[in-house]
Amino acid sequence: MTRLSLIGIGTGNPDHVTLAAVRALNAADLVLLPRKGDAKSDLVDLRRLLCRDLLESSSRTRIVEFDLPQRDTRSDYLDAVDDWHGAIARVWGELMATHLPEGGQAAMLIWGDPSLYDSSLRIAGRLSAVGRAVEVEVVPGITSLQVLTAEHRIPLNAVAEPVQITTGRRLRERGWPTDAASVAVMLDSGGAFDALPPEGLYIWWGAYLGMDKQTLIEGWLVDAAPSIIEHRAVLRERHGWIMDTYLLARTPLYDN
Amino acid sequence: MTRLSLIGIGTGNPDHVTLAAVRALNAADLVLLPRKGDAKSDLVDLRRLLCRDLLESSSRTRIVEFDLPQRDTRSDYLDAVDDWHGAIARVWGELMATHLPEGGQAAMLIWGDPSLYDSSLRIAGRLSAVGRAVEVEVVPGITSLQVLTAEHRIPLNAVAEPVQITTGRRLRERGWPTDAASVAVMLDSGGAFDALPPEGLYIWWGAYLGMDKQTLIEGWLVDAAPSIIEHRAVLRERHGWIMDTYLLARTPLYDN
Ligand SMILES: C[S@@+](CC[C@H](N)C(=O)[O-])C[C@H]1O[C@@H](n2cnc3c(N)ncnc32)[C@H](O)[C@@H]1O
Ligand SMILES: C[S@@+](CC[C@H](N)C(=O)[O-])C[C@H]1O[C@@H](n2cnc3c(N)ncnc32)[C@H](O)[C@@H]1O
Repeated sequence: MTRLSLIGIGTGNPDHVTLAAVRALNAADLVLLPRKGDAKSDLVDLRRLLCRDLLESSSRTRIVEFDLPQRDTRSDYLDAVDDWHGAIARVWGELMATHLPEGGQAAMLIWGDPSLYDSSLRIAGRLSAVGRAVEVEVVPGITSLQVLTAEHRIPLNAVAEPVQITTGRRLRERGWPTDAASVAVMLDSGGAFDALPPEGLYIWWGAYLGMDKQTLIEGWLVDAAPSIIEHRAVLRERHGWIMDTYLLARTPLYDN
Repeated sequence: MTRLSLIGIGTGNPDHVTLAAVRALNAADLVLLPRKGDAKSDLVDLRRLLCRDLLESSSRTRIVEFDLPQRDTRSDYLDAVDDWHGAIARVWGELMATHLPEGGQAAMLIWGDPSLYDSSLRIAGRLSAVGRAVEVEVVPGITSLQVLTAEHRIPLNAVAEPVQITTGRRLRERGWPTDAASVAVMLDSGGAFDALPPEGLYIWWGAYLGMDKQTLIEGWLVDAAPSIIEHRAVLRERHGWIMDTYLLARTPLYDN
């Protein structure tokens, strides 16, 4: 029998790793490390570094790197994602068959927390369809949103109010969600907040959260928006990639 | 100058503590530990245990316990909360004046993550009004929602869909939030999901997450609701207190 640990590792600050994550990593026989495109090689380096720093000398953990299949960008989005998950499940299955022929404990290091806009749980669920059923364990990790709120020293929600977590695409398409006093936005390819009437909205923005190059901007949306868009472009150019997230809140409900 | 660390400690599993939290705790001169009502003394014990286990023998950290002021339950909710935060800020201020007369590093252990339905950031913001301005630092921690999703091995969001985090009271008053494929509910005094038409809804429920007495139930809402309500009453009776949270999702959007 093969067991698979999906280990949340936070978003770049190695100190955000939990004791449970350290333990799970050291208990693994095999760690599968996906290589991404060149631009995001920082993120692969960070995972390698974590393994090097956290694996105790006594551990027998083997680290195997592999190339992630590419997603088809031509077809319908949800169909393409579905095919892509199937392709990744096949690769995981083959790697486990090769490196853990007798079964054992496999692990993957998951950016942030495995529950938030991450597909590893869904991919793991498809392993049985490719003939490699596994027992999955999830080790929670600090999400990018938590680093955002910690670094800005703000709560996610207004007192006793709901908060919506959404994507840049959704915010653009649907505008402000009806029931929320604050909205956290992830996976924004750039400036989705521009689709909102900015009056009464405040923004706390963060890029490369938890890393050396972390950048924070906050302010009334009407003032901060142009500055965020400009910084985002410059940083992206400089580093070759960017990951950013932000919280928007409607005052006066959210009086931080 | 006094600095104050708000240290997220997870929700009961000591292994969910991060390396940053361990470091911040050991760097503190003073840890303020609120005593709660008798029923929840488990939670105070857990904080004491964490301090005992995580403080290195070389650390000079002093632990000071104090009684939390009571909230006025008669007046308007938001007014009462506001007064209560003021009263707590005064107590924190006095404790820091007594135990750190020359300034230094104070810390508080915050349940879960300080950003999520927690008032310590707002209370800390009021310290200047009581003559004790502090520099605040936040150390993120694993939230109860992350333990819920990890233990059930589910994602929080459907693929590319928004998720709403809300309170039991809001769910009861407003029903299903318009834009969300999944909804996470906290601070429910019991069975707020009963206010929803259950068709097509699935629930993943968890109580005492991260603790020995952790209890999980999942199922179609129509089947699971009575069982959850019954278990909740029994567990609450047995332990004298309960904390629970759950994720609701609309199928087929959320096909886990
Ligand atoms: C595919 S999602 C994964 C989220 C991850 N599971 C988590 O818990 O944060 C990627 C999105 O997360 C956000 N993100 C992840 N890491 C980040 C970082 N270090 N700084 C800012 N945003 C980040 C960005 O919004 C990015 O588009
Ligand atoms: C005042 S809020 C604090 C939340 C905390 N800051 C966090 O990050 O989880 C308390 C609510 O959190 C949830 N909660 C906290 N700890 C929990 C646990 N161990 N098991 C289940 N729910 C929990 C419950 O919904 C409870 O009503």
